[in-house]
Amino acid sequence: MEDLSNIRIVLVNPLYGGNVGAICRAMANMGLKDLVLVEPAALNLAEARMMAVAADSILKSRREVATVAEAVADCGLVMGTTARGGLYRAHVKTPREWAPRILESAAKGKVALVFGRENSGLTNEELAICTNLIQIPSSPDYPSLNIAQAVMICCYECYVAHGTFVPAEEMSPECPVATREQMFKMWREMLIEIGFMKEEKADHMMLGLRRIFGRAPLTEDDVRILMGVARQTMWKAGQDAE
Amino acid sequence: MEDLSNIRIVLVNPLYGGNVGAICRAMANMGLKDLVLVEPAALNLAEARMMAVAADSILKSRREVATVAEAVADCGLVMGTTARGGLYRAHVKTPREWAPRILESAAKGKVALVFGRENSGLTNEELAICTNLIQIPSSPDYPSLNIAQAVMICCYECYVAHGTFVPAEEMSPECPVATREQMFKMWREMLIEIGFMKEEKADHMMLGLRRIFGRAPLTEDDVRILMGVARQTMWKAGQDAE
Repeated sequence: MEDLSNIRIVLVNPLYGGNVGAICRAMANMGLKDLVLVEPAALNLAEARMMAVAADSILKSRREVATVAEAVADCGLVMGTTARGGLYRAHVKTPREWAPRILESAAKGKVALVFGRENSGLTNEELAICTNLIQIPSSPDYPSLNIAQAVMICCYECYVAHGTFVPAEEMSPECPVATREQMFKMWREMLIEIGFMKEEKADHMMLGLRRIFGRAPLTEDDVRILMGVARQTMWKAGQDAE
Repeated sequence: MEDLSNIRIVLVNPLYGGNVGAICRAMANMGLKDLVLVEPAALNLAEARMMAVAADSILKSRREVATVAEAVADCGLVMGTTARGGLYRAHVKTPREWAPRILESAAKGKVALVFGRENSGLTNEELAICTNLIQIPSSPDYPSLNIAQAVMICCYECYVAHGTFVPAEEMSPECPVATREQMFKMWREMLIEIGFMKEEKADHMMLGLRRIFGRAPLTEDDVRILMGVARQTMWKAGQDAE
């Protein structure tokens, strides 16, 4: 169960104590422990405790932080959940499809599953920091799940997959978010510098690059190489300009 | 989605409106519609509506009945949910394992998924009327799921399986519960009559027989034959006694 305890549940701006409590119970049911809340509302903790039942220890040991970036800074894989499709969301997969990938990452370090607001999900900025996106199969007539239900299904798929999981052969450590974000920042500057994109389109274009680099695990070596590419390109662009 | 709407969710003595509402939403998320409550407590309907959100129509169209037998009388397959193992519970499978079997039955008629009380599950008498048992995989440290979460996982597995489901070749119609119960009643009498079991052990012994006959679908033809066996055996036993 060690791998499972490396899976962190991140809730962005949760509003209802009852949901947070139900999520603690769902996590305990499926062998998870690590709960981080990003800027929670003033939660009704009595309601949270009532719904957590015997998972009160997860509620007590929750951490509260100010941003998604902070919540996932030490994670390799960051899975965002979304109910919507769309251009840069084409690479969305189901929790069952992602479960082996999540366990592969969790066998080596921290993984985050990020869930958005009860009413409006994750912002595009928050989705951008995610390496991959999860969409839970649901009826087109009413696709929007309660957040505690969405968390349960994702935890359940990890738990079930864990039962039959065989980790892949060892490889170099997966790159943590903080370093990867530095790399994306360098690429953003570089791509503007070389005239590949304009400042006003940059955030949108970067979503595409994030998807490309998010499709498979990025190791620390990979990110070092990508940073080198950006650095060298900027140097060369600066040279040509002279 | 026609097959899915043949799947009925049966809640025995539900206590909390919030849970019932959350279950309505989970059902709608996964393409189900048919909700039956067995002797519900005085539910907080405001809380139920709040949790049902856009699935209010399922809440409104719920039926309330007095017994599990009544709730499932027109069903072929009756799946009971249990958190416990034990002698006659050896044939318990996971919702993922049962999903194809549930869809096979739902392609031809009504199927019930029966969920017990929030605090104490289903009684042995209620479990006996179930043809099969479902156990949701969960952590041994905290195996007990909130009822709305348990319903969601079962509905979700049916929904996901439905996406890839190919119905088996046609066969004679599955026997409804009411007729099957008549058959079990005849077998019970017959087995006492022939001295296979004593009255005081009969209910316990019948659980074993129910498991045996519950392992695969029983058609109307099957049940006619089994009734014939019981009738003939009793006639013969009566003859010998003369």
